Amino acid sequence: MTTSPSVIIFDVNETLSDMSPMGARFGEVGVPAELAQLWFATLLRDGFALTASGDNGSFAGIGADALRRLLTGREVNRPLDVAVEHVMGGLAGLGVHPDVPEGVRALAAAGFRLITLSNGSAQIAEKLFREAGIRGAFESLLSVEDAPAWKPARAAYEYAAAASGVDPSGMLLVAVHPWDIHGAARAGLRTAWLNRTGGSYPGYFEAPEFTVTAMTELPTALAATH
Amino acid sequence: MTTSPSVIIFDVNETLSDMSPMGARFGEVGVPAELAQLWFATLLRDGFALTASGDNGSFAGIGADALRRLLTGREVNRPLDVAVEHVMGGLAGLGVHPDVPEGVRALAAAGFRLITLSNGSAQIAEKLFREAGIRGAFESLLSVEDAPAWKPARAAYEYAAAASGVDPSGMLLVAVHPWDIHGAARAGLRTAWLNRTGGSYPGYFEAPEFTVTAMTELPTALAATH
Repeated sequence: MTTSPSVIIFDVNETLSDMSPMGARFGEVGVPAELAQLWFATLLRDGFALTASGDNGSFAGIGADALRRLLTGREVNRPLDVAVEHVMGGLAGLGVHPDVPEGVRALAAAGFRLITLSNGSAQIAEKLFREAGIRGAFESLLSVEDAPAWKPARAAYEYAAAASGVDPSGMLLVAVHPWDIHGAARAGLRTAWLNRTGGSYPGYFEAPEFTVTAMTELPTALAATH
Repeated sequence: MTTSPSVIIFDVNETLSDMSPMGARFGEVGVPAELAQLWFATLLRDGFALTASGDNGSFAGIGADALRRLLTGREVNRPLDVAVEHVMGGLAGLGVHPDVPEGVRALAAAGFRLITLSNGSAQIAEKLFREAGIRGAFESLLSVEDAPAWKPARAAYEYAAAASGVDPSGMLLVAVHPWDIHGAARAGLRTAWLNRTGGSYPGYFEAPEFTVTAMTELPTALAATH
Protein backbone atom coordinates (compact mmCIF):
# COMPACT_ATOMS: atom_id res chain seq x y z
CA MET A 1 0.00 0.00 0.00
CA THR A 2 1.53 3.30 -0.99
CA THR A 3 -1.18 5.83 -0.11
CA SER A 4 -2.32 6.94 3.30
CA PRO A 5 -5.93 6.77 4.40
CA SER A 6 -7.64 10.16 4.62
CA VAL A 7 -9.89 9.37 7.58
CA ILE A 8 -8.84 7.62 10.78
CA ILE A 9 -11.71 6.04 12.66
CA PHE A 10 -11.14 5.15 16.29
CA ASP A 11 -12.96 2.64 18.44
CA VAL A 12 -13.76 4.22 21.84
CA ASN A 13 -14.21 1.68 24.70
CA GLU A 14 -10.76 0.40 25.79
CA THR A 15 -9.12 1.81 22.65
CA LEU A 16 -9.33 5.45 23.77
CA SER A 17 -10.92 5.10 27.21
CA ASP A 18 -9.08 3.32 30.00
CA MET A 19 -11.60 0.80 31.33
CA SER A 20 -9.36 -0.54 34.10
CA PRO A 21 -11.20 1.52 36.80
CA MET A 22 -14.26 -0.67 36.12
CA GLY A 23 -12.52 -3.46 38.05
CA ALA A 24 -12.35 -1.18 41.10
CA ARG A 25 -16.10 -0.53 40.82
CA PHE A 26 -16.75 -4.27 41.07
CA GLY A 27 -14.46 -4.39 44.11
CA GLU A 28 -16.32 -1.47 45.70
CA VAL A 29 -19.63 -3.37 45.62
CA GLY A 30 -17.94 -6.36 47.27
CA VAL A 31 -17.20 -8.79 44.42
CA PRO A 32 -13.85 -9.67 42.79
CA ALA A 33 -12.46 -7.01 40.44
CA GLU A 34 -11.80 -9.79 37.88
CA LEU A 35 -15.55 -10.05 37.28
CA ALA A 36 -15.23 -6.92 35.14
CA GLN A 37 -13.71 -9.06 32.40
CA LEU A 38 -16.54 -11.59 32.46
CA TRP A 39 -19.09 -8.78 32.49
CA PHE A 40 -17.60 -7.05 29.44
CA ALA A 41 -17.24 -10.34 27.51
CA THR A 42 -20.89 -11.15 28.33
CA LEU A 43 -22.05 -7.68 27.25
CA LEU A 44 -20.29 -8.04 23.90
CA ARG A 45 -21.35 -11.69 23.46
CA ASP A 46 -25.00 -10.76 23.83
CA GLY A 47 -24.67 -7.55 21.82
CA PHE A 48 -23.04 -9.50 18.98
CA ALA A 49 -25.75 -12.18 19.24
CA LEU A 50 -28.34 -9.46 18.67
CA THR A 51 -26.27 -8.16 15.76
CA ALA A 52 -25.98 -11.64 14.24
CA SER A 53 -29.75 -12.06 14.42
CA GLY A 54 -30.43 -8.71 12.77
CA ASP A 55 -31.07 -6.51 15.80
CA ASN A 56 -29.40 -3.39 17.15
CA GLY A 57 -29.20 -3.49 20.96
CA SER A 58 -28.47 -0.77 23.50
CA PHE A 59 -24.94 -0.98 24.88
CA ALA A 60 -25.86 0.53 28.26
CA GLY A 61 -29.10 -1.47 28.44
CA ILE A 62 -27.37 -4.79 27.80
CA GLY A 63 -24.56 -3.81 30.16
CA ALA A 64 -26.88 -3.08 33.09
CA ASP A 65 -29.09 -6.13 32.50
CA ALA A 66 -26.13 -8.51 32.15
CA LEU A 67 -24.52 -6.96 35.22
CA ARG A 68 -27.66 -7.50 37.29
CA ARG A 69 -27.68 -11.21 36.42
CA LEU A 70 -23.93 -11.48 37.05
CA LEU A 71 -24.31 -9.96 40.53
CA THR A 72 -27.46 -11.91 41.44
CA GLY A 73 -26.60 -14.63 43.93
CA ARG A 74 -23.24 -13.06 44.79
CA GLU A 75 -22.53 -11.27 48.05
CA VAL A 76 -22.81 -7.59 47.22
CA ASN A 77 -22.50 -5.04 50.01
CA ARG A 78 -25.51 -2.92 49.03
CA PRO A 79 -28.95 -3.43 47.48
CA LEU A 80 -28.70 -4.99 44.00
CA ASP A 81 -30.14 -1.93 42.20
CA VAL A 82 -27.65 0.34 43.92
CA ALA A 83 -24.76 -2.02 43.12
CA VAL A 84 -25.72 -2.13 39.43
CA GLU A 85 -26.00 1.66 39.35
CA HIS A 86 -22.64 2.07 41.05
CA VAL A 87 -20.79 -0.19 38.61
CA MET A 88 -22.55 1.22 35.52
CA GLY A 89 -21.81 4.74 36.77
CA GLY A 90 -18.15 3.92 36.29
CA LEU A 91 -18.58 3.97 32.50
CA ALA A 92 -19.36 7.69 32.56
CA GLY A 93 -16.35 8.49 34.71
CA LEU A 94 -13.53 6.93 32.69
CA GLY A 95 -10.53 8.85 31.39
CA VAL A 96 -8.43 8.33 28.28
CA HIS A 97 -5.26 6.22 28.21
CA PRO A 98 -2.07 8.29 28.78
CA ASP A 99 -0.86 7.77 25.18
CA VAL A 100 -4.10 9.05 23.64
CA PRO A 101 -3.89 12.88 23.82
CA GLU A 102 -0.42 13.13 22.28
CA GLY A 103 -1.14 10.44 19.67
CA VAL A 104 -4.45 11.93 18.60
CA ARG A 105 -3.04 15.48 18.38
CA ALA A 106 -0.11 14.28 16.28
CA LEU A 107 -2.45 12.49 13.86
CA ALA A 108 -4.63 15.60 13.57
CA ALA A 109 -1.53 17.74 13.00
CA ALA A 110 -0.40 15.34 10.26
CA GLY A 111 -3.58 16.22 8.36
CA PHE A 112 -5.73 13.14 8.92
CA ARG A 113 -9.45 13.60 9.45
CA LEU A 114 -10.29 11.91 12.79
CA ILE A 115 -13.63 10.38 13.78
CA THR A 116 -14.79 7.84 16.34
CA LEU A 117 -17.30 4.99 15.99
CA SER A 118 -18.51 3.35 19.19
CA ASN A 119 -20.87 0.51 20.01
CA GLY A 120 -21.67 2.69 23.03
CA SER A 121 -23.27 6.11 23.04
CA ALA A 122 -21.84 9.26 21.48
CA GLN A 123 -22.57 11.14 24.73
CA ILE A 124 -20.05 9.05 26.67
CA ALA A 125 -17.43 9.74 23.99
CA GLU A 126 -18.25 13.47 23.97
CA LYS A 127 -17.70 13.74 27.74
CA LEU A 128 -14.56 11.61 27.62
CA PHE A 129 -12.83 13.74 24.99
CA ARG A 130 -14.00 17.06 26.37
CA GLU A 131 -12.51 16.22 29.76
CA ALA A 132 -9.28 15.03 28.14
CA GLY A 133 -9.06 18.30 26.17
CA ILE A 134 -9.02 16.53 22.79
CA ARG A 135 -12.62 16.97 21.61
CA GLY A 136 -11.47 19.50 19.00
CA ALA A 137 -9.23 16.94 17.31
CA PHE A 138 -12.26 14.91 16.16
CA GLU A 139 -14.44 15.89 13.26
CA SER A 140 -17.36 13.76 14.47
CA LEU A 141 -18.25 11.22 17.14
CA LEU A 142 -20.42 8.45 15.72
CA SER A 143 -22.39 5.72 17.47
CA VAL A 144 -23.88 2.54 16.07
CA GLU A 145 -27.11 3.79 17.69
CA ASP A 146 -27.50 5.73 14.42
CA ALA A 147 -26.24 2.86 12.22
CA PRO A 148 -28.12 -0.24 11.03
CA ALA A 149 -26.01 -2.52 13.24
CA TRP A 150 -23.18 -2.79 15.79
CA LYS A 151 -19.61 -3.34 14.83
CA PRO A 152 -18.29 -5.79 13.62
CA ALA A 153 -21.16 -5.95 11.09
CA ARG A 154 -20.21 -4.46 7.73
CA ALA A 155 -23.13 -2.03 7.89
CA ALA A 156 -21.61 -0.23 10.89
CA TYR A 157 -18.40 0.63 9.04
CA GLU A 158 -20.29 1.52 5.88
CA TYR A 159 -22.41 3.91 7.92
CA ALA A 160 -19.25 5.66 9.15
CA ALA A 161 -17.83 5.81 5.63
CA ALA A 162 -21.05 7.32 4.27
CA ALA A 163 -21.22 9.80 7.16
CA SER A 164 -17.66 10.87 6.34
CA GLY A 165 -18.16 11.00 2.59
CA VAL A 166 -15.30 8.65 1.82
CA ASP A 167 -14.94 5.15 0.44
CA PRO A 168 -14.23 2.46 3.09
CA SER A 169 -10.83 1.91 1.45
CA GLY A 170 -9.89 5.48 2.36
CA MET A 171 -10.44 4.83 6.07
CA LEU A 172 -8.18 3.30 8.71
CA LEU A 173 -9.79 1.72 11.79
CA VAL A 174 -7.77 1.85 15.01
CA ALA A 175 -8.84 -0.54 17.78
CA VAL A 176 -7.55 -2.68 20.62
CA HIS A 177 -10.16 -5.35 19.88
CA PRO A 178 -9.30 -7.95 17.26
CA TRP A 179 -13.00 -8.46 16.45
CA ASP A 180 -13.20 -4.81 15.40
CA ILE A 181 -10.09 -5.14 13.23
CA HIS A 182 -11.66 -8.20 11.61
CA GLY A 183 -14.98 -6.55 10.85
CA ALA A 184 -13.33 -3.42 9.49
CA ALA A 185 -11.02 -5.46 7.25
CA ARG A 186 -14.01 -7.45 5.94
CA ALA A 187 -15.78 -4.17 5.20
CA GLY A 188 -12.81 -2.96 3.14
CA LEU A 189 -11.18 -0.58 5.62
CA ARG A 190 -7.51 -0.51 6.43
CA THR A 191 -6.66 -1.45 10.01
CA ALA A 192 -4.28 -0.73 12.88
CA TRP A 193 -4.25 -2.90 15.99
CA LEU A 194 -3.34 -1.03 19.15
CA ASN A 195 -1.73 -3.74 21.28
CA ARG A 196 -0.93 -2.00 24.57
CA THR A 197 -0.77 -5.22 26.61
CA GLY A 198 1.61 -7.35 24.55
CA GLY A 199 -1.10 -9.90 23.82
CA SER A 200 -1.13 -12.22 20.82
CA TYR A 201 -3.57 -11.77 17.96
CA PRO A 202 -6.24 -14.48 17.44
CA GLY A 203 -5.58 -16.70 14.44
CA TYR A 204 -9.25 -16.76 13.48
CA PHE A 205 -9.55 -13.01 12.85
CA GLU A 206 -8.26 -11.12 9.83
CA ALA A 207 -4.80 -9.79 10.73
CA PRO A 208 -4.22 -6.02 11.03
CA GLU A 209 -2.17 -4.09 8.49
CA PHE A 210 -0.40 -2.12 11.23
CA THR A 211 0.35 -3.06 14.82
CA VAL A 212 1.46 -0.44 17.35
CA THR A 213 1.87 -0.58 21.11
CA ALA A 214 0.83 3.03 21.77
CA MET A 215 -1.20 5.64 19.91
CA THR A 216 1.92 7.81 19.75
CA GLU A 217 3.56 5.26 17.40
CA LEU A 218 0.81 5.50 14.82
CA PRO A 219 1.88 8.75 13.04
CA THR A 220 5.31 7.26 12.31
CA ALA A 221 3.86 3.90 11.25
CA LEU A 222 1.54 5.63 8.78
CA ALA A 223 4.22 8.01 7.52
CA ALA A 224 6.37 4.99 6.62
CA THR A 225 3.73 3.92 4.08
CA HIS A 226 4.18 7.04 1.94
CA MET B 1 -51.12 -21.35 19.82
CA THR B 2 -53.21 -24.50 19.48
CA THR B 3 -50.99 -26.80 17.43
CA SER B 4 -47.84 -28.60 18.48
CA PRO B 5 -44.59 -28.32 16.57
CA SER B 6 -43.66 -31.45 14.63
CA VAL B 7 -39.87 -31.15 15.04
CA ILE B 8 -38.04 -30.36 18.25
CA ILE B 9 -34.57 -28.98 17.72
CA PHE B 10 -32.17 -29.07 20.66
CA ASP B 11 -29.11 -26.99 21.29
CA VAL B 12 -26.23 -29.24 22.46
CA ASN B 13 -23.57 -27.46 24.55
CA GLU B 14 -24.92 -26.87 28.09
CA THR B 15 -28.48 -27.64 26.98
CA LEU B 16 -27.91 -31.39 26.65
CA SER B 17 -24.28 -31.72 27.74
CA ASP B 18 -23.28 -30.88 31.29
CA MET B 19 -20.34 -28.50 30.90
CA SER B 20 -19.64 -28.13 34.62
CA PRO B 21 -16.65 -30.57 34.48
CA MET B 22 -14.88 -27.96 32.32
CA GLY B 23 -14.30 -25.95 35.50
CA ALA B 24 -12.43 -28.90 37.01
CA ARG B 25 -10.20 -29.05 33.91
CA PHE B 26 -9.17 -25.43 34.51
CA GLY B 27 -8.46 -26.31 38.12
CA GLU B 28 -6.36 -29.29 37.06
CA VAL B 29 -4.01 -27.09 35.02
CA GLY B 30 -3.59 -24.79 38.04
CA VAL B 31 -5.91 -21.83 37.38
CA PRO B 32 -9.24 -20.96 39.02
CA ALA B 33 -12.21 -23.09 37.91
CA GLU B 34 -14.22 -19.87 37.47
CA LEU B 35 -12.11 -19.05 34.39
CA ALA B 36 -14.25 -21.59 32.51
CA GLN B 37 -17.05 -19.03 32.39
CA LEU B 38 -14.83 -16.29 30.97
CA TRP B 39 -13.40 -18.73 28.44
CA PHE B 40 -16.83 -19.81 27.19
CA ALA B 41 -18.13 -16.22 27.04
CA THR B 42 -15.01 -15.24 25.07
CA LEU B 43 -15.40 -18.19 22.68
CA LEU B 44 -19.01 -17.21 21.95
CA ARG B 45 -18.22 -13.48 21.79
CA ASP B 46 -15.60 -14.07 19.10
CA GLY B 47 -17.67 -16.71 17.29
CA PHE B 48 -20.62 -14.31 17.18
CA ALA B 49 -18.33 -11.50 16.00
CA LEU B 50 -17.30 -13.69 13.07
CA THR B 51 -20.98 -14.46 12.43
CA ALA B 52 -21.91 -10.76 12.53
CA SER B 53 -19.19 -10.00 9.99
CA GLY B 54 -20.33 -12.75 7.63
CA ASP B 55 -17.90 -15.53 8.52
CA ASN B 56 -18.38 -19.05 9.85
CA GLY B 57 -15.71 -19.92 12.43
CA SER B 58 -14.62 -23.24 13.91
CA PHE B 59 -15.95 -23.75 17.45
CA ALA B 60 -13.02 -25.92 18.53
CA GLY B 61 -10.51 -23.69 16.75
CA ILE B 62 -11.76 -20.53 18.42
CA GLY B 63 -12.01 -22.37 21.75
CA ALA B 64 -8.38 -23.52 21.71
CA ASP B 65 -7.01 -20.20 20.45
CA ALA B 66 -9.00 -18.15 22.99
CA LEU B 67 -7.97 -20.57 25.73
CA ARG B 68 -4.29 -20.20 24.87
CA ARG B 69 -4.52 -16.42 25.21
CA LEU B 70 -6.52 -16.71 28.44
CA LEU B 71 -3.88 -18.99 29.99
CA THR B 72 -0.90 -16.98 28.73
CA GLY B 73 0.66 -15.06 31.59
CA ARG B 74 -1.14 -17.14 34.23
CA GLU B 75 0.59 -19.74 36.37
CA VAL B 76 -0.23 -23.06 34.74
CA ASN B 77 1.33 -26.24 36.12
CA ARG B 78 2.40 -27.71 32.76
CA PRO B 79 3.61 -26.46 29.37
CA LEU B 80 1.06 -24.14 27.74
CA ASP B 81 0.36 -26.48 24.80
CA VAL B 82 -0.30 -29.37 27.16
CA ALA B 83 -2.55 -27.23 29.36
CA VAL B 84 -4.60 -26.11 26.34
CA GLU B 85 -4.90 -29.70 25.16
CA HIS B 86 -5.95 -30.90 28.61
CA VAL B 87 -8.73 -28.34 28.98
CA MET B 88 -9.98 -28.74 25.38
CA GLY B 89 -9.95 -32.51 25.85
CA GLY B 90 -12.65 -32.01 28.45
CA LEU B 91 -15.16 -31.09 25.73
CA ALA B 92 -15.01 -34.59 24.28
CA GLY B 93 -15.53 -36.22 27.67
CA LEU B 94 -18.72 -34.52 28.84
CA GLY B 95 -21.89 -36.38 29.76
CA VAL B 96 -25.52 -35.34 29.46
CA HIS B 97 -27.47 -33.65 32.28
CA PRO B 98 -29.41 -36.14 34.47
CA ASP B 99 -32.80 -34.89 33.20
CA VAL B 100 -31.91 -35.40 29.54
CA PRO B 101 -32.34 -39.16 28.86
CA GLU B 102 -35.81 -39.41 30.38
CA GLY B 103 -36.97 -36.11 28.88
CA VAL B 104 -35.70 -36.91 25.40
CA ARG B 105 -37.18 -40.42 25.42
CA ALA B 106 -40.56 -39.07 26.54
CA LEU B 107 -40.58 -36.51 23.73
CA ALA B 108 -39.68 -39.19 21.18
CA ALA B 109 -42.40 -41.47 22.59
CA ALA B 110 -44.89 -38.60 22.26
CA GLY B 111 -44.27 -38.64 18.52
CA PHE B 112 -42.09 -35.58 18.03
CA ARG B 113 -39.25 -35.75 15.51
CA LEU B 114 -36.06 -34.83 17.41
CA ILE B 115 -32.93 -33.24 15.97
CA THR B 116 -29.98 -31.27 17.34
CA LEU B 117 -28.26 -28.18 15.98
CA SER B 118 -24.91 -27.24 17.51
CA ASN B 119 -22.42 -24.44 16.99
CA GLY B 120 -19.91 -27.20 17.78
CA SER B 121 -19.19 -30.32 15.77
CA ALA B 122 -21.66 -33.13 15.07
CA GLN B 123 -18.98 -35.66 16.13
CA ILE B 124 -19.02 -34.38 19.72
CA ALA B 125 -22.81 -34.70 19.79
CA GLU B 126 -22.67 -38.18 18.26
CA LYS B 127 -20.30 -39.43 20.97
CA LEU B 128 -22.27 -37.69 23.73
CA PHE B 129 -25.59 -39.29 22.82
CA ARG B 130 -24.15 -42.72 22.03
CA GLU B 131 -22.56 -42.87 25.47
CA ALA B 132 -25.80 -41.69 27.11
CA GLY B 133 -27.75 -44.37 25.24
CA ILE B 134 -30.06 -41.86 23.53
CA ARG B 135 -28.57 -41.61 20.04
CA GLY B 136 -31.53 -43.52 18.63
CA ALA B 137 -33.99 -40.88 19.83
CA PHE B 138 -32.59 -38.34 17.39
CA GLU B 139 -33.36 -38.32 13.69
CA SER B 140 -30.29 -36.23 12.83
CA LEU B 141 -27.46 -34.34 14.49
CA LEU B 142 -26.76 -31.10 12.67
CA SER B 143 -23.85 -28.69 12.99
CA VAL B 144 -23.51 -25.11 11.77
CA GLU B 145 -20.31 -26.35 10.13
CA ASP B 146 -22.65 -27.38 7.31
CA ALA B 147 -24.80 -24.23 7.53
CA PRO B 148 -24.08 -20.75 6.16
CA ALA B 149 -23.61 -19.33 9.67
CA TRP B 150 -23.60 -19.97 13.41
CA LYS B 151 -26.65 -19.62 15.57
CA PRO B 152 -28.15 -17.11 16.38
CA ALA B 153 -28.06 -16.02 12.70
CA ARG B 154 -31.33 -16.74 10.92
CA ALA B 155 -29.53 -18.79 8.27
CA ALA B 156 -28.54 -21.43 10.85
CA TYR B 157 -32.15 -22.16 11.83
CA GLU B 158 -33.30 -22.03 8.21
CA TYR B 159 -30.64 -24.60 7.39
CA ALA B 160 -32.04 -26.95 10.04
CA ALA B 161 -35.60 -26.39 8.83
CA ALA B 162 -34.62 -27.15 5.24
CA ALA B 163 -32.65 -30.23 6.32
CA SER B 164 -35.74 -31.46 8.17
CA GLY B 165 -38.18 -30.60 5.40
CA VAL B 166 -40.41 -28.46 7.60
CA ASP B 167 -41.27 -24.81 7.84
CA PRO B 168 -39.50 -22.93 10.68
CA SER B 169 -42.92 -22.37 12.28
CA GLY B 170 -43.28 -26.15 12.69
CA MET B 171 -40.13 -26.35 14.79
CA LEU B 172 -39.51 -25.76 18.49
CA LEU B 173 -36.03 -24.82 19.63
CA VAL B 174 -35.01 -25.95 23.12
CA ALA B 175 -32.00 -24.22 24.67
CA VAL B 176 -30.53 -22.99 27.94
CA HIS B 177 -29.01 -19.95 26.20
CA PRO B 178 -31.24 -16.90 25.81
CA TRP B 179 -29.29 -15.79 22.70
CA ASP B 180 -30.35 -19.05 21.02
CA ILE B 181 -34.00 -18.53 22.00
CA HIS B 182 -33.80 -15.02 20.56
CA GLY B 183 -32.31 -16.06 17.24
CA ALA B 184 -34.77 -18.92 16.83
CA ALA B 185 -37.74 -16.66 17.60
CA ARG B 186 -36.47 -14.10 15.08
CA ALA B 187 -36.21 -16.89 12.49
CA GLY B 188 -39.84 -17.88 13.08
CA LEU B 189 -39.36 -20.95 15.27
CA ARG B 190 -41.24 -21.61 18.47
CA THR B 191 -39.07 -21.67 21.58
CA ALA B 192 -38.63 -23.33 24.97
CA TRP B 193 -36.13 -22.00 27.49
CA LEU B 194 -34.61 -24.65 29.71
CA ASN B 195 -33.82 -22.75 32.90
CA ARG B 196 -32.11 -25.30 35.14
CA THR B 197 -30.37 -22.73 37.32
CA GLY B 198 -33.26 -20.45 38.28
CA GLY B 199 -31.70 -17.51 36.45
CA SER B 200 -33.63 -14.55 35.11
CA TYR B 201 -34.15 -14.03 31.40
CA PRO B 202 -32.47 -10.99 29.78
CA GLY B 203 -34.86 -8.20 28.91
CA TYR B 204 -33.08 -7.48 25.61
CA PHE B 205 -33.77 -10.90 24.06
CA GLU B 206 -37.06 -12.14 22.65
CA ALA B 207 -38.86 -14.03 25.44
CA PRO B 208 -39.43 -17.80 25.14
CA GLU B 209 -42.90 -19.26 24.56
CA PHE B 210 -42.28 -22.02 27.12
CA THR B 211 -40.04 -22.06 30.17
CA VAL B 212 -39.21 -25.33 31.95
CA THR B 213 -36.69 -26.14 34.68
CA ALA B 214 -35.92 -29.68 33.46
CA MET B 215 -36.22 -31.51 30.14
CA THR B 216 -38.66 -33.91 31.80
CA GLU B 217 -41.20 -31.05 32.14
CA LEU B 218 -41.28 -30.35 28.42
CA PRO B 219 -43.65 -33.16 27.30
CA THR B 220 -46.31 -31.93 29.73
CA ALA B 221 -45.77 -28.29 28.81
CA LEU B 222 -46.22 -29.09 25.12
CA ALA B 223 -49.21 -31.37 25.71
CA ALA B 224 -50.97 -28.47 27.45
CA THR B 225 -50.97 -26.55 24.16
CA HIS B 226 -53.14 -29.10 22.38
